[in-house]
Amino acid sequence: MALTGELFVASKRVSRDGPGFKAVAAATGTEIEPSFSIATTEDVETAAAAAEAAFPIYSGLPREDRAKFLEAIADEIEALGDELVERAMQESGLPQARLTGERGRTAGQLRLFAKELRLGEYLRARIDHAIPDRAPAPKPDLRLRHVPLGPVTVFGASNFPLAFSVAGGDTASALAAGCPVIVKGHSAHPGTSELVAGAITRAAEKTGMPAGVFSLINGAGNTVGQALVTDPRIKAVGFTGSRGGGTALMKLAQNRPIPIPVYAEMSSINPVFLLPGALAARAEALGKGYIASLTMGAGQFCTNPGLVLALEGPDLDTFVTSASDAMCGAPSQVMLTPGIHKAYESGVARWASAPALKLVAKGQEASGPTSGRGALFTMTGADFIADPSHAEEVFGAASLLVRCADIAELQKVVTLLEGQLTATLHLAESDTELARQLLPSLERLAGRILANGWPTGVEVTDAQVHGGPFPSTSDGRSTSVGTLAIDRFLRPVAYQDLPEALLPAELREDSSVPRRIDGKPTL
Amino acid sequence: MALTGELFVASKRVSRDGPGFKAVAAATGTEIEPSFSIATTEDVETAAAAAEAAFPIYSGLPREDRAKFLEAIADEIEALGDELVERAMQESGLPQARLTGERGRTAGQLRLFAKELRLGEYLRARIDHAIPDRAPAPKPDLRLRHVPLGPVTVFGASNFPLAFSVAGGDTASALAAGCPVIVKGHSAHPGTSELVAGAITRAAEKTGMPAGVFSLINGAGNTVGQALVTDPRIKAVGFTGSRGGGTALMKLAQNRPIPIPVYAEMSSINPVFLLPGALAARAEALGKGYIASLTMGAGQFCTNPGLVLALEGPDLDTFVTSASDAMCGAPSQVMLTPGIHKAYESGVARWASAPALKLVAKGQEASGPTSGRGALFTMTGADFIADPSHAEEVFGAASLLVRCADIAELQKVVTLLEGQLTATLHLAESDTELARQLLPSLERLAGRILANGWPTGVEVTDAQVHGGPFPSTSDGRSTSVGTLAIDRFLRPVAYQDLPEALLPAELREDSSVPRRIDGKPTL
Repeated sequence: MALTGELFVASKRVSRDGPGFKAVAAATGTEIEPSFSIATTEDVETAAAAAEAAFPIYSGLPREDRAKFLEAIADEIEALGDELVERAMQESGLPQARLTGERGRTAGQLRLFAKELRLGEYLRARIDHAIPDRAPAPKPDLRLRHVPLGPVTVFGASNFPLAFSVAGGDTASALAAGCPVIVKGHSAHPGTSELVAGAITRAAEKTGMPAGVFSLINGAGNTVGQALVTDPRIKAVGFTGSRGGGTALMKLAQNRPIPIPVYAEMSSINPVFLLPGALAARAEALGKGYIASLTMGAGQFCTNPGLVLALEGPDLDTFVTSASDAMCGAPSQVMLTPGIHKAYESGVARWASAPALKLVAKGQEASGPTSGRGALFTMTGADFIADPSHAEEVFGAASLLVRCADIAELQKVVTLLEGQLTATLHLAESDTELARQLLPSLERLAGRILANGWPTGVEVTDAQVHGGPFPSTSDGRSTSVGTLAIDRFLRPVAYQDLPEALLPAELREDSSVPRRIDGKPTL
Repeated sequence: MALTGELFVASKRVSRDGPGFKAVAAATGTEIEPSFSIATTEDVETAAAAAEAAFPIYSGLPREDRAKFLEAIADEIEALGDELVERAMQESGLPQARLTGERGRTAGQLRLFAKELRLGEYLRARIDHAIPDRAPAPKPDLRLRHVPLGPVTVFGASNFPLAFSVAGGDTASALAAGCPVIVKGHSAHPGTSELVAGAITRAAEKTGMPAGVFSLINGAGNTVGQALVTDPRIKAVGFTGSRGGGTALMKLAQNRPIPIPVYAEMSSINPVFLLPGALAARAEALGKGYIASLTMGAGQFCTNPGLVLALEGPDLDTFVTSASDAMCGAPSQVMLTPGIHKAYESGVARWASAPALKLVAKGQEASGPTSGRGALFTMTGADFIADPSHAEEVFGAASLLVRCADIAELQKVVTLLEGQLTATLHLAESDTELARQLLPSLERLAGRILANGWPTGVEVTDAQVHGGPFPSTSDGRSTSVGTLAIDRFLRPVAYQDLPEALLPAELREDSSVPRRIDGKPTL
């Protein structure tokens, strides 16, 4: 399938004259064909109007129909075959194995949400039967379910061109909830986006969805994104990207006449705690594991271990030696975009010029103009406490090890950290008591707490939380990965004394979804 | 127990010199003793620091301990006896029967949250067991529960001096979630607040809670409230009051370095639809029911039926005649504060001077300086469509009937309404099809949809939603009444591969709370 550079406005391919834009090959920084259309104001208007018109139809469909739509998208994405992975490799610079895995994850999470729809527990249905003879007043019949918010805008992310872009986690959870989706495509991978958008529209057609259920809009600069976030028909926003971008969207959404929620996943340095027992038992292995996690995908994961905390001592020296050796052997890797590469280089330069920080190891020399070279820095706990701004995220394979004099200093450092997606404990049995002391702080700090692992693998499952207090996300009350992500696009509605004929299917007596009935959870 | 006018700073009674303030008797507008202390900046600081210190202790308690604390508060409130109701009558002007009922509701909702804690379903616990031999990579063990956000500020509401003030719904749900609470007392009922705060602190002492779990702070003007909402230790805000007050708090919270959620319940006119079949069958009874609901409690309910929509015709004339008759017989009633009375009077005057509105009936003459006199207005659907600003809430026993020429006009009016707490359908069997057409719009408009009832009764139960799209609340994704209200103060945390010894009790294998385990809901 040749790329056309078209937009998808209400599932229809649309081409626009005038200056377009081209993708840039991540490895070389050179442009690749074709040129992509930039959406007009009318395109945004058409997409929003169609999403609004589609909402009552799409949200009113039986859950089974939406489940089939999600599964059809997964099938169509897989049917794109090698072309999708090849274009994504070219545009993102990510290796084939990673993108093949990411395609699997993308299809897998669409199918997981289909399963979630069939289960129906996400509706959190509740029934309180009437008590007509209650004194002093009769008790009415009350029934509750969750309904979708309305059309949703999703911003594609550069670091997951499949799993967090056009048909990624935000789109899957919003579509599952019953919300039409308008994707603002990321300019770093427009070809990948076009291929996936084609898959979605084919799936929508095959399963009889209303045209407005999906649009893909490209834009230059922020105009199109701003128009979408401020459009009165848009009821929620999903975003993964920089802190600056995320907080700008939050402001836009809050200043609307009717404010809407923005689910922005922004910056996190994912502190890793090496507790004394673990360090005594396996400092060398930990050093290797750390660098493997840090340099994976050129360090371009939201859950990259950007900060390590440990107590001074010979075991920590062993860890540093092991990590330094591993870092010295780590090949440089193509970064996602020339802009991200440049920001990484300047972040590393900022750290290198900070008197409190010490560079202890660098990865192998850059092999191309946009290749990122890993970097490992250390500093003392006292210096960190004096200026915690060093903890600002450097997006890429750079990390900072904070050597603490004692446990009190380590605990002080924890209180200075901003909200995080993850916090990791490496511990041995002898560390249990210290871990127990740290846990309450870590629960306040992060959305996911790991033991004896590395934060970079994010399992897509029921019990996952990929979220956390500000600024790791704009709203720590939610997750963007895993089935609980559907919650973000729902709100509760109660029905009082509604005749059975008018009740939603899941609130009728004969429904089989899990519900709480008269105070008792039932399956 | 004589009132002392003291604050409760971290459960300790504190008195402040300098100018204080007195309550004003609602019926007469005259001051009543004693004088109440105004909190200093240090008091706010002490309360916030104590709440922060109490948080890890209080949130870490077994659910059973928090349940017993909530039940002890209910017991202590009931033990206050007549004094509480009498003081609340004096301060609020609400009648004895209403306040006795409200006291029952207040105690009842504290006990309902105790039950919710024991059930433990609110944790939404999930377990995904590890699959160590999964290819290509092992699947880790992941477990999820919800944890409390941190200390919460609750603003007491004037219209429910018990059920939505010091120990009201917001306080009960926040304490249940595991959050210490700092109440900003409402200046309209400081004596009632002091009595209830005394009950809470006695309950805290008897059940061994940390002192910082509760504070009651009074202030003049907005200073104290602003200090609390912008304090970095406060993690969420509950508020019931005016749209101006609520949106001001939203802005304050959003402009913090770390934004926090504000759950503000603001304005709602609660549209009531009289469908043709219902009107044909029982126009007269509907007219009486309408005025009874409208004038209850001087119309000072968030769920007051402020707007009625129906189709022109002789049945509607019958309804209007019946409603007018009932209104003419409705006695005036003391309003909550002189300020609310004044605002009501000017709202009614605004409607009376609008050329499109027609006054069809007034309640009985005011019997005192702060008594509100009911008022019933009508206008045509066409006029409403031309200027929907007439739908702005007039807080009190005034309501507007919109006479629509046809169904299309009625449906057009619906699209012009702002977000609402409730929407009510009066319907007969013959109206089913029309109701089915309207339902999708009503689900988008409101948090609760009623059939053949009046919105003023708000049952405190599992399936209740007292919430709705902006501006009825600041965040339509939640409810402030019913057990689901606990959600507002929680966020999800995942635990990956944590040793059993470090897992929270509810995520260990042997826990009996309802959970989703490996994709299957279990009880």
